[in-house]
Amino acid sequence: MRQSTLPIKTRKEAPRDEVSKNAQLLIRAGFIHKELAGVYSILPLGLRVIRKIENIIREEMNALGGIELLMSSLQDSALWKKTNRFSDESMDVWFKTHLHSGDKFHEGTELGLASTHEEPITNMLKEHISSYKDLPFAVYQIQTKFRNEVRAKSGILRGREFAMKDLYSFARTEEEFREFYEKCAVAYEKIFSRVGIGEQTFRTFASGGAFSEFSDEFQTITDAGEDTIYISDEKGFAVNKEVYTDATLEKLGLKKESLREARAIEVGNIFPLGTRFSSALGLSYKNEEGKEVTPIMGSYGIGIGRLMGTVVEVLADDRGLVWPESIAPFDVHLVRIGSDREVVEVADTLYERLQERNISVLLDDRDKSPGEKFADSDLLGIPRRIVIGPQSLKDSSVELVHRRDGIVHTKKIEEIEKL
Amino acid sequence: MRQSTLPIKTRKEAPRDEVSKNAQLLIRAGFIHKELAGVYSILPLGLRVIRKIENIIREEMNALGGIELLMSSLQDSALWKKTNRFSDESMDVWFKTHLHSGDKFHEGTELGLASTHEEPITNMLKEHISSYKDLPFAVYQIQTKFRNEVRAKSGILRGREFAMKDLYSFARTEEEFREFYEKCAVAYEKIFSRVGIGEQTFRTFASGGAFSEFSDEFQTITDAGEDTIYISDEKGFAVNKEVYTDATLEKLGLKKESLREARAIEVGNIFPLGTRFSSALGLSYKNEEGKEVTPIMGSYGIGIGRLMGTVVEVLADDRGLVWPESIAPFDVHLVRIGSDREVVEVADTLYERLQERNISVLLDDRDKSPGEKFADSDLLGIPRRIVIGPQSLKDSSVELVHRRDGIVHTKKIEEIEKL
Repeated sequence: MRQSTLPIKTRKEAPRDEVSKNAQLLIRAGFIHKELAGVYSILPLGLRVIRKIENIIREEMNALGGIELLMSSLQDSALWKKTNRFSDESMDVWFKTHLHSGDKFHEGTELGLASTHEEPITNMLKEHISSYKDLPFAVYQIQTKFRNEVRAKSGILRGREFAMKDLYSFARTEEEFREFYEKCAVAYEKIFSRVGIGEQTFRTFASGGAFSEFSDEFQTITDAGEDTIYISDEKGFAVNKEVYTDATLEKLGLKKESLREARAIEVGNIFPLGTRFSSALGLSYKNEEGKEVTPIMGSYGIGIGRLMGTVVEVLADDRGLVWPESIAPFDVHLVRIGSDREVVEVADTLYERLQERNISVLLDDRDKSPGEKFADSDLLGIPRRIVIGPQSLKDSSVELVHRRDGIVHTKKIEEIEKL
Repeated sequence: MRQSTLPIKTRKEAPRDEVSKNAQLLIRAGFIHKELAGVYSILPLGLRVIRKIENIIREEMNALGGIELLMSSLQDSALWKKTNRFSDESMDVWFKTHLHSGDKFHEGTELGLASTHEEPITNMLKEHISSYKDLPFAVYQIQTKFRNEVRAKSGILRGREFAMKDLYSFARTEEEFREFYEKCAVAYEKIFSRVGIGEQTFRTFASGGAFSEFSDEFQTITDAGEDTIYISDEKGFAVNKEVYTDATLEKLGLKKESLREARAIEVGNIFPLGTRFSSALGLSYKNEEGKEVTPIMGSYGIGIGRLMGTVVEVLADDRGLVWPESIAPFDVHLVRIGSDREVVEVADTLYERLQERNISVLLDDRDKSPGEKFADSDLLGIPRRIVIGPQSLKDSSVELVHRRDGIVHTKKIEEIEKL
């Protein structure tokens, strides 16, 4: 993409009411736009990052045998009353609305905007599942969730509207459930590594529910984190403060003095649901003896925007964003200094050559000073920067700069074309 | 995909309250699930179709130079009051909700769920556009819209929650605006051809607004259509009943007696907006003389679900869905009859070979009768069916059936592998 054709610009300042580092940087770099507290639109460069994150998650969920679908946001309150989750006390994050009554708004059937999808997915499957042969399976979606958060001050780490990957597993036995659950935990670790925060992310024991003593969170260490965890570097896992008791430590074979405390953000969770939803909503199948049995469920979530925000919190530096290659909006930022005919020609040729080899390139062809271009380039955080200017062209070379360490390499143009 | 692993099944009957052909067939085939009137979840096979439609549209919008972004659904009412479009009288399709006040729902800031995005896109661009050098450009999204339709009886042709591609163009002069507008009209015709309804779709003169006498609709002939149009086969375009007056006909050089009347569904529209939104929201740029000028806008919409539903209405037959190759959930339905060892082996090998060549295959490996399998296959509507059974294998051949015409071809297995 030629930067001159991008209608979105960088900014010197983020909105004054934006206190989080992730949103400040993403707004200044033109990756997102703040609509209202906790609600962000995703601008072209941000969308390129989001799509890459989604595709990494999709690949890993498909590899698990997960089957993708897409549930609606609008939900009839009647369904959620069956599990006692529509009242404001039981789940206080609803955005509620009404069907048009014909005469007026605000008077028809009460609807909610889903913040999670256990109920509608379980309910939908009642029309499809009937035999033990239909199980086990897992379905997932990458879908927009709505949560009416009272305070939304963490930028895209805690949005009121955000995309989430949520997967739901259905098994016949506890063993079958656990087998998938552990495979999914491994897939989650792979995802967090692939997006560049593997080293900072720990599988973490957290509180379970009626059906399991623990659930598992994936917590990434960052000062912006809302949770406190205790990490065992030796064992490679952590314990959430909420279950950090002597009894838990004993059960997990952990010694208090060997753990280190850290602030962390929950980038994913996997949760045993038992038969809570299948039972309340009447989802069952006939087993081999012809008896009706209720499947055992699990849910597995990753917030897409939250993951993007966490990568920003962990990797960005004081000059701006720093993207890992796997989710960068472009592979290369090609920065052209000045507009001498030869510089333009060399830059345009390299732009085409790299793209022919499936390397995505943002070409800074704008009429700006080198200082402005470099500052913008640092802010955007594309992993590799190639600088072409009249100076460097004197000996047919260009500068290659890695955003992460800032080290400058001088390369011949022929070398760069084979990048 | 092996059909035995798909948790979603076909059904003999659609819900009794579902009167539209498109939703009846899509529900019976397991492509969608009805959550409530006008609200459908998209099941795995349906999602494969939707993604293909989205990608065709995306390719054509990118070819126009359109830049993709993704705006939020939640919208602060304050913004929409500036254009006088939040009141129930001016735009009676809002789903309205409230921010959590801290104590209670229903008392915080009033929000709406966007049914269109002129306001937020125009408003967002105020922070990015400043010079005539920034124009012209076009941004688009494929995003979920919410419309509180009073009656929602047309299945996915008129949903209360649906994905839409909406593009917004920004130009400096009427000429620049018209140039893009006409290019987009050509792109729309390409899209409708690519999804298989080109022959049935006509560019149609419809009512404009304050800034243009006409807008352009793309209308597809089908009995399920909600509009009446008058087609000039000679000129290759049509006139919507709403502007079908003697004055219009004269202006367009049409003779009443040469036109044929038809029911049609609006699958797309392109609309001149003039400066209605840029002016109301204060979007401007400095022209070459340093004077502040208001850009001329256009909007260009295609409903994704509506397009899928229209393809169903136009192409489906009394045995079920019929998908064009461009948007079929799979390229090939490989139907295995019985489970003789040789049949299973040949089917599995062919399944792998075709996929290696990037041909997507749904393998019916279920333990069902041939009659049930053929009925399901007809209902799903995958363009090519390959039948492997003990009979055909006697002379190393299989049956190839095209869903559209039902004609059976006998082919040697070696031939089929090169399909």
